[in-house]
Amino acid sequence: MKLAFEEAKKGINTWTNPQVGAVIVKNDQILGQGHHATFGHEHAEINAFKSLKNIDDAKNATLYVTLEPCSHFGKTPPCVQKIAELGVKKVVIGQIDPNPLVSGKGVKYLQEHGVEVEEQLISSELNRSYNYFYKNNRPLVTVKYAMTLDGKINKNDGQRSIVSNQATFEDSQQLRSQQQVILIGENTLKIDDPALTVRDRKMLFPPIRAVVVRDINQISLDLKIFQTDEPIWLFSEKKNRRTLPKNVEVIVGEWTPENILNYLTAQKVQAVLVEGGSFLQAKFLSAGLVEKLVIYLANKIYGSGLPAVWGVDFDPLDFAKPTVESLADNLKITTWRKD
Amino acid sequence: MKLAFEEAKKGINTWTNPQVGAVIVKNDQILGQGHHATFGHEHAEINAFKSLKNIDDAKNATLYVTLEPCSHFGKTPPCVQKIAELGVKKVVIGQIDPNPLVSGKGVKYLQEHGVEVEEQLISSELNRSYNYFYKNNRPLVTVKYAMTLDGKINKNDGQRSIVSNQATFEDSQQLRSQQQVILIGENTLKIDDPALTVRDRKMLFPPIRAVVVRDINQISLDLKIFQTDEPIWLFSEKKNRRTLPKNVEVIVGEWTPENILNYLTAQKVQAVLVEGGSFLQAKFLSAGLVEKLVIYLANKIYGSGLPAVWGVDFDPLDFAKPTVESLADNLKITTWRKD
Repeated sequence: MKLAFEEAKKGINTWTNPQVGAVIVKNDQILGQGHHATFGHEHAEINAFKSLKNIDDAKNATLYVTLEPCSHFGKTPPCVQKIAELGVKKVVIGQIDPNPLVSGKGVKYLQEHGVEVEEQLISSELNRSYNYFYKNNRPLVTVKYAMTLDGKINKNDGQRSIVSNQATFEDSQQLRSQQQVILIGENTLKIDDPALTVRDRKMLFPPIRAVVVRDINQISLDLKIFQTDEPIWLFSEKKNRRTLPKNVEVIVGEWTPENILNYLTAQKVQAVLVEGGSFLQAKFLSAGLVEKLVIYLANKIYGSGLPAVWGVDFDPLDFAKPTVESLADNLKITTWRKD
Repeated sequence: MKLAFEEAKKGINTWTNPQVGAVIVKNDQILGQGHHATFGHEHAEINAFKSLKNIDDAKNATLYVTLEPCSHFGKTPPCVQKIAELGVKKVVIGQIDPNPLVSGKGVKYLQEHGVEVEEQLISSELNRSYNYFYKNNRPLVTVKYAMTLDGKINKNDGQRSIVSNQATFEDSQQLRSQQQVILIGENTLKIDDPALTVRDRKMLFPPIRAVVVRDINQISLDLKIFQTDEPIWLFSEKKNRRTLPKNVEVIVGEWTPENILNYLTAQKVQAVLVEGGSFLQAKFLSAGLVEKLVIYLANKIYGSGLPAVWGVDFDPLDFAKPTVESLADNLKITTWRKD
């Protein structure tokens, strides 16, 4: 099962599909293994079957799979059908699928078709946002910022500062690659002028870059974000009156954090990264909608400047004991909201 | 020599004297050891001699001592004289004394009196403020604050918040015990009303509690700081016109960070802890006078409130790669100014 989890992590283009790994064992020998690699493509079980030298080897074998096999026709036919057909004797499952389309139905189908099922439930970091989404019916929101030792995210309000080092930049690229949506506020768009892309990484499904703006018509199309092809969603209060690049979608409404998350939930977005600024972060935090914090702590003191979370008054929020990682001379602090 | 350093650390009441340890070795056997325990009392070498079963054992022995033995009459007679008298063959020194009263003169005296001297210079955390003081002719200033994950030191400006946990409280007591002066600003005195004492610790020389105030006559004597016997220095702009408790000394002047440090230097204060508030910290930091930062990071988000360093505009300051320690669910971050 450990091997199956390692296998699962290889799937880096699963988008909103879970990462899943599968290993086929018979007579204490590993005969095949596979993972779900790409959203819309074969599931882990099918890839494991394909890796067998002889498909008949599946007969009477044990299949270790990190997630309950699917029982529905989605973008691919149901895996449970294939498992039963090939005569697999036993399936060991690392986690029941929280997706209501599957949840428990996969196990039930297998048992009804004479396949023994064992649950070896393993708690894992794998598919944290997938699980969160189906449990809470909203995306898992991570807030990320880089701040100085005195809690500032820039030196002069209204002007971009490079707070943290190159190692944190690379780490934050990795963090972005795990999201479906990266969200920023209008001030951050204008002041930092970020591209919000995932660099140095060939992603089949790059995160959607989303910005909350008051009036899309007031936003300059010369900004860096508009110079790249990855999709852009603009949450605007006002309707668009201009011709926009074809990767830009304008969604008109009153965009409170709750309304934004409702919209993203409807779009099946499971993982959102809020990357600034202070005010948008404060709004999401004050709404109680932030599960995870990633803070890059730069070894500087600014004194003046904009505090990391600012502009909204709310009751103190408690987070769990953080984990700390050194990124060259900066620190990465990760923590989760306390239940 | 390692043993001598361990021995040195036992001296917890040395005040502005250095911590020193000494070990006497002959024929590969440890015959005696001692440390400097208390300001004004015997030095480590003398205590090591006293620990010998027979004082004649010192003859032809090797003395390992973490700091160059003193050569001047201070509060005790010079150690080098005793060392030579007793016929010690060789002295191995861990560090030359930076105090100009001794520096090099101890080694010279020993050599002139037929004692072999070896320097085994060891870099150590021991006597960091003592060494700093004699090198830079001013005290080593540490700024300490407890802040939230978004860099705030209280929730509402003008009102005390308990930011960090019990473990950081205990650690900060330890930090205080290593100082000769603990310095705060007037707002912190009034808002936090701290005692600034070192609790749970029997100290012969407790740190002096110092406060920068505009007008001593406007300060309430009901504050906690005035209810304990440890010495208090009040840096006031205005002259005192009241009868004050006898442990309170008022020093009148214009108290910029530079002026405060000049005064403390004249008083031979080697280690100062600035414990708040934001404005006093900002003033010391902006003056370039802070060598060390100790930050307790509490796992909370406040949003609003007072930032950790605030009220003075200055160029960004760079600090070295921090060290991190877990204190229950809080973090302790320690870093030194970059040269």
